Amino acid sequence: MKIAFIGLGNMGSPMARNLLKAGHGLTVFDLNKAALAELVGAGAVAAASPAAAVAGAETVITMLPMAAHVNTVLFAEDGVFAGLGAGVPIIDSSTIDPQSAQAFAKATAERGSAFVDAPVSGGTAGAAAGTLTFMVGATPEVCEQVRPVLEAMGKNIIHCGASGTGQIAKICNNLLLGIAMAGVAEAMSLGEKLGIDVKTLASIINTSTGRCWSADTNNPMPGVLPGAPSSRGYTGGFGTDLMLKDMTLATQAAHQVKQPVMMGALAQQLYRLSSQHGEGAHDFSSIIKLYRADEA
Amino acid sequence: MKIAFIGLGNMGSPMARNLLKAGHGLTVFDLNKAALAELVGAGAVAAASPAAAVAGAETVITMLPMAAHVNTVLFAEDGVFAGLGAGVPIIDSSTIDPQSAQAFAKATAERGSAFVDAPVSGGTAGAAAGTLTFMVGATPEVCEQVRPVLEAMGKNIIHCGASGTGQIAKICNNLLLGIAMAGVAEAMSLGEKLGIDVKTLASIINTSTGRCWSADTNNPMPGVLPGAPSSRGYTGGFGTDLMLKDMTLATQAAHQVKQPVMMGALAQQLYRLSSQHGEGAHDFSSIIKLYRADEA
Amino acid sequence: MKIAFIGLGNMGSPMARNLLKAGHGLTVFDLNKAALAELVGAGAVAAASPAAAVAGAETVITMLPMAAHVNTVLFAEDGVFAGLGAGVPIIDSSTIDPQSAQAFAKATAERGSAFVDAPVSGGTAGAAAGTLTFMVGATPEVCEQVRPVLEAMGKNIIHCGASGTGQIAKICNNLLLGIAMAGVAEAMSLGEKLGIDVKTLASIINTSTGRCWSADTNNPMPGVLPGAPSSRGYTGGFGTDLMLKDMTLATQAAHQVKQPVMMGALAQQLYRLSSQHGEGAHDFSSIIKLYRADEA
Amino acid sequence: MKIAFIGLGNMGSPMARNLLKAGHGLTVFDLNKAALAELVGAGAVAAASPAAAVAGAETVITMLPMAAHVNTVLFAEDGVFAGLGAGVPIIDSSTIDPQSAQAFAKATAERGSAFVDAPVSGGTAGAAAGTLTFMVGATPEVCEQVRPVLEAMGKNIIHCGASGTGQIAKICNNLLLGIAMAGVAEAMSLGEKLGIDVKTLASIINTSTGRCWSADTNNPMPGVLPGAPSSRGYTGGFGTDLMLKDMTLATQAAHQVKQPVMMGALAQQLYRLSSQHGEGAHDFSSIIKLYRADEA
Repeated sequence: MKIAFIGLGNMGSPMARNLLKAGHGLTVFDLNKAALAELVGAGAVAAASPAAAVAGAETVITMLPMAAHVNTVLFAEDGVFAGLGAGVPIIDSSTIDPQSAQAFAKATAERGSAFVDAPVSGGTAGAAAGTLTFMVGATPEVCEQVRPVLEAMGKNIIHCGASGTGQIAKICNNLLLGIAMAGVAEAMSLGEKLGIDVKTLASIINTSTGRCWSADTNNPMPGVLPGAPSSRGYTGGFGTDLMLKDMTLATQAAHQVKQPVMMGALAQQLYRLSSQHGEGAHDFSSIIKLYRADEA
Repeated sequence: MKIAFIGLGNMGSPMARNLLKAGHGLTVFDLNKAALAELVGAGAVAAASPAAAVAGAETVITMLPMAAHVNTVLFAEDGVFAGLGAGVPIIDSSTIDPQSAQAFAKATAERGSAFVDAPVSGGTAGAAAGTLTFMVGATPEVCEQVRPVLEAMGKNIIHCGASGTGQIAKICNNLLLGIAMAGVAEAMSLGEKLGIDVKTLASIINTSTGRCWSADTNNPMPGVLPGAPSSRGYTGGFGTDLMLKDMTLATQAAHQVKQPVMMGALAQQLYRLSSQHGEGAHDFSSIIKLYRADEA
Repeated sequence: MKIAFIGLGNMGSPMARNLLKAGHGLTVFDLNKAALAELVGAGAVAAASPAAAVAGAETVITMLPMAAHVNTVLFAEDGVFAGLGAGVPIIDSSTIDPQSAQAFAKATAERGSAFVDAPVSGGTAGAAAGTLTFMVGATPEVCEQVRPVLEAMGKNIIHCGASGTGQIAKICNNLLLGIAMAGVAEAMSLGEKLGIDVKTLASIINTSTGRCWSADTNNPMPGVLPGAPSSRGYTGGFGTDLMLKDMTLATQAAHQVKQPVMMGALAQQLYRLSSQHGEGAHDFSSIIKLYRADEA
Repeated sequence: MKIAFIGLGNMGSPMARNLLKAGHGLTVFDLNKAALAELVGAGAVAAASPAAAVAGAETVITMLPMAAHVNTVLFAEDGVFAGLGAGVPIIDSSTIDPQSAQAFAKATAERGSAFVDAPVSGGTAGAAAGTLTFMVGATPEVCEQVRPVLEAMGKNIIHCGASGTGQIAKICNNLLLGIAMAGVAEAMSLGEKLGIDVKTLASIINTSTGRCWSADTNNPMPGVLPGAPSSRGYTGGFGTDLMLKDMTLATQAAHQVKQPVMMGALAQQLYRLSSQHGEGAHDFSSIIKLYRADEA
């Protein structure tokens, strides 16, 4: 299939490479010339603009930092809409607010195509391995139509409902994730201070009602899980500043629909505090350092 | 075995019945005459005091509301220590603060016996079914010694470490549980407001990084899990006021060891608010009602 | 002086009336025909667009709900910039985010005029009485230039610094105000529950280190201050939803500059919760109802 | 008058000295021999026990760290009650929980005397200068009876109501104080980051609805108030660990009466975090350092 891919950052580049590996024809665009050159080296064709990239494409994929970038890529004079063929679906894998995703879907429908919100989880490791989870907001028909393309980049393709629900699922999940990780950081720090062996505590939690991904897969206490970021100086994983971005999307979406989120708002501020204390680029489980200041 | 059981409340009564079913000889004590009479009807012998109950017993079990009650039951003039045989272990399944548990262990050791902190999880349903989890703080030898008795009342007997660690494990787990449940309540309420199907959202969370017991086993959103308290008016389950008690033990223990717990302290207050709004006797997942005030 | 006034809502209308009373010539614009007609009845001239309103004006004043409205009023085809004379200052008394105010100032300077951010405090009562406080962001020269116009509508004209600082002062003050009011609500509710006379408690706080405007001028406990909104069913005053708007501006500005605000974020959510429980249109001191649910 | 003074710490010693200066006869007791010796050097008579100290006294004053110490001083074998003359009032200026104060009052009344809770504000500077504020819980008659003694140590003697209300007033005020200071820290840090001059911001807040003691008298931003602890490295003033003690008393009292205090609980944890980060002995306004980690 002929695919246009726009946005070759830390996530976009490995995703685009997996499409090439799957045998798709790829035209790519990014403002970063070095990123473009790398993909060309891997077999892609570089385009001079989004409009040029999508000319003749059967599917368009965008992977961008924020809604404002998606807006520009779509609506600029030389943007996607200036070159898009009728009926060609746009898959946006950026994590953005649901309201923007719905607005983009409306604008795309008015132009006779479908806009699919398909944010991912799995991080750069999942992007490289082709094991991402895609949360898809689209009609069932469009979801089935784009599934083969997504399957070249990920292993779980989850249909969440109509336009915007992919983003809704992503930010609700990550709101909870951010809260739970802060909770695990508190529970593990408290146990450590009270004198229980932290590995024992983790094993009890992991078979009890406190069990959660943040405890059994990404435990923030160093030494509990040998393979987790906490056991290698919090490198790799999902960065504090990325968690902060998602929690900000979640709390702002909550504001839009007048939904109180007390725990989420506090957790967001704690990741902000952690980032301010120098942990922005470390895995978000490094929030435990806030609580263990006297253990350093 | 000849066992003395002191404290026949909602948890203690079914636990004592399971000991009878397992063929143990049981002498029981409680200030509540009706509760005593019921156990006598089931085959137990009533005693007039803790001292009388433990006379001749090979094991003593206490199941009481607070540390102050344990203190009285042990040290009163006609208390346990007035009748306890040398070397007879005391298993305390009350949920109390770790510091008190350690003090009781020290006082018991000075009298030539062992005090085992063995708080439970599993609620009244687990107590009735004999499927409780016991978190045991004791030496490995004492833990093995009391294991057969505990196995008559529960299915998981977890050795957590030295005296007090059973309580530490319990309050750390429940601190996290209280935080996670509030987080699930926020994530589910936000998703509902933003317009995603709540069952779909739950299924996504349950296979993603937000997965946790509060989402996949006790989801607070009505209709998501047919068997959960949320789908039967929040009856049954683990009451808000009991969660509040455990979170208070956790935050007070944190204060004792100078450990900050920002999320835990906020969650504690939210359960207090929920209780004040009339949910004290309902399952703690009813905290979601705070967030869905405009859905009622 | 010939003044154009755009935005005749609950605040703008009485402000415009005070300009008429002071003898200024007034051309007014609003999308609401009834509001326009009322001002015409008071002596103003109605215009058909912002561009028409500012034609020939020596000063322009805007009083609008959000930055998006200011943006439209300035930049629309028939907006202010389509009719503004060279060197005519624009005074924006809307409460908006500082970054937008600075952007508007830059755009206005490029057109040869000055944009003054001049948000107010004092509410509708202050607007009617002409006793508003204006927090002014502009050069000292421009501040002096517009002072006489502002003095027709307010009694305190405070120069806060360069463009944007009027808005910064406003949102920082209101962030603190929102926190302090929630704090007074907690302190007064706790005192009531513990059994001290609430008037006595207020009088002690007001002469101690807890003293603040929210305790001595707008105490949220009914019966403490006869003239406060709390003593008349929380009518009048500064609405919960307006406080929520300002706290949202403050927390979003904090996000922009990467400043953690834990207390502010929690307070914002509590006003959201209060609004969800039906208090949106009541004075923000009604947040105390959250805490006194069992006193109703 | 013949006065017994028990507890010669940082507060008690200067208070006792002011009683000597006022011409009262003083018998003193403390476990710290050096502190005793200093007071003897100033004219007091040392006693070997509380019982000995109160023998023949017309008034007893206690100034101790916690309720447990008051309990011991009163009830020990050689405690106050072992030597107290009939009708001799006990003034307790310790800051303790209201429930304990009420229990002590009941026990004292049963022995035919009055127990007055009279916690202070004003810190060590106020104790030295004799300018403390006393918050008095007692009958009006007893309050008048002890007023002359209190006036030798303070300048404001406030009758708060029946037994316990002195402590209630103190902890409610300090709960609010701790919240407001954290709020000022956030508002000032945010203003600084957004680019307004911090002195200007403080002056605006101090004449607006955000005004409070924490902003106009003890502003936490260095350089705003030359005489405040923030302008001398946060030395002097009211220590973070003392604020933490009072906020803990307040939140525990709130728990006893089932009163939610979300903001207070969060603020308490933030002072705990600040203390953990090394600010325990600094003025509590040093909490602003948490927020300005990137300004250091």
